[in-house]
Amino acid sequence: MAGRALIDLVHAGGPSEADLRRFTRVALEIAAETRRIVIDAVRDGFSHQRKADQTFVTDVDFAVEDRIRERLAAEFPTHAVRGEERADRPGASEYEWVVDPIDGTLSLRHGVPLFGTILALRCRGRPLVGVIDLPMLDRRYHATRGLGAFRDGRRLRIEPPESVDDEIVAVGDRRQFVGVGRSELFDRLLVAHPVVRTYADCFGHALAIEGSVGAMVDFGLRAWDVAATEVLVTEAGGEYVEVGRRPLACGDDVHDVVFGKAAVVQRVLGVLGTLT
Amino acid sequence: MAGRALIDLVHAGGPSEADLRRFTRVALEIAAETRRIVIDAVRDGFSHQRKADQTFVTDVDFAVEDRIRERLAAEFPTHAVRGEERADRPGASEYEWVVDPIDGTLSLRHGVPLFGTILALRCRGRPLVGVIDLPMLDRRYHATRGLGAFRDGRRLRIEPPESVDDEIVAVGDRRQFVGVGRSELFDRLLVAHPVVRTYADCFGHALAIEGSVGAMVDFGLRAWDVAATEVLVTEAGGEYVEVGRRPLACGDDVHDVVFGKAAVVQRVLGVLGTLT
Repeated sequence: MAGRALIDLVHAGGPSEADLRRFTRVALEIAAETRRIVIDAVRDGFSHQRKADQTFVTDVDFAVEDRIRERLAAEFPTHAVRGEERADRPGASEYEWVVDPIDGTLSLRHGVPLFGTILALRCRGRPLVGVIDLPMLDRRYHATRGLGAFRDGRRLRIEPPESVDDEIVAVGDRRQFVGVGRSELFDRLLVAHPVVRTYADCFGHALAIEGSVGAMVDFGLRAWDVAATEVLVTEAGGEYVEVGRRPLACGDDVHDVVFGKAAVVQRVLGVLGTLT
Repeated sequence: MAGRALIDLVHAGGPSEADLRRFTRVALEIAAETRRIVIDAVRDGFSHQRKADQTFVTDVDFAVEDRIRERLAAEFPTHAVRGEERADRPGASEYEWVVDPIDGTLSLRHGVPLFGTILALRCRGRPLVGVIDLPMLDRRYHATRGLGAFRDGRRLRIEPPESVDDEIVAVGDRRQFVGVGRSELFDRLLVAHPVVRTYADCFGHALAIEGSVGAMVDFGLRAWDVAATEVLVTEAGGEYVEVGRRPLACGDDVHDVVFGKAAVVQRVLGVLGTLT
């Protein structure tokens, strides 16, 4: 299947395998650099401020995004770049990088080690490369379309669950669901499944990619929150379903997604009910 | 306050400071050994089985508890030992060790790195020493009554929150609250506080001890789940409140507890309402 996907991509006039491998290698090099920035900042301290949307941003977010943009501009001067904290850079090609320097700034700010950095490359909107780096857990996940998903170099293959009831279901924070008018779905899920845990942000995504949680249910996401996840999940052999998408005034969309082991994703979609 | 507590303890005929330091040193040595057992098992694989209460136990739980019991028997032959997975060992003194070899077996089984080992020493029921070791996060917390709380040698001091609303509140799994007939309190808390996350087991306790979450609300706990937490929280300068305790047929009790930063604990107690 993976080989077929790559062949289809190349036939469609997309990047060559050599291109894909180079994009992936550079993304991983950048993640190694940004991890050092994050670890140094956690050790030495950093400041935070509140944004217009009332969420927080830290010096670390800006330092990491600036480093990513510097490196991408040097390596791929024609590629567009979108990031959470800085203005979009338009591109002169069909390639677009989407980055979240710190996904889980609330966790970073409070010293909860479950945050990370997200980098993703799309071509004509199609995800090609995804990287999630979890600095404090020493874990780096990456996937390349047609070439597999990996954690720290080890191939990831999501296995079917022994029992759907025994699987953990991860969710984002309840306020994400409140923010998109879907709090009743959050509440229903917590009652319906035996173990539902709020493993917010890319930590929950990483657990689903690895098969540690059976599924992740994450609502009210911006492009950078979810940019790496589809290619990571599908290359690992899991299922990725966008259950909702709504346009924002700024022209961007908000995404509601469910992903993980197919049987658990189906159970979750059944519980969510009104969406399917 | 810490010095005063130690003086009171010694005046009351309790252990000397030298005794307390020796108990603590041995507990930390044991935690270093059990961490190696856990890390090796995670790398090499392990098997699991379902217990009579439908929860899971793994080979790792048994291997860790057996190692703890061996070391305690050799070091403190007169001390009693209670552990989750093996029969109680009666003692010939007023000292009792309470241990949970793997707190968060569900997480261990699924590869979620948020589980740990708990060791605690009591004298006539009073907690003297508490250790929580988180092998996959490379974090070890310890406290000794009157001598402070530490993470990896660094003194911990819980600071008042900048804003109670911005604090994360951690909770155990909803089914813990269902199990003790208190699911409505879980649901109320999730609606009432902006960010409530299920950081179950000793990972959530550790975050509260460190001040990363403002409070942890954990219901339906057995003695070994909570044995280390009171001395860790109070020595770090936090507040620890037992909001419920009910006897079990086996003669043991089930504990419902709230702990963390005083202002956040008070907010939570207000939300729980019916209990205070």
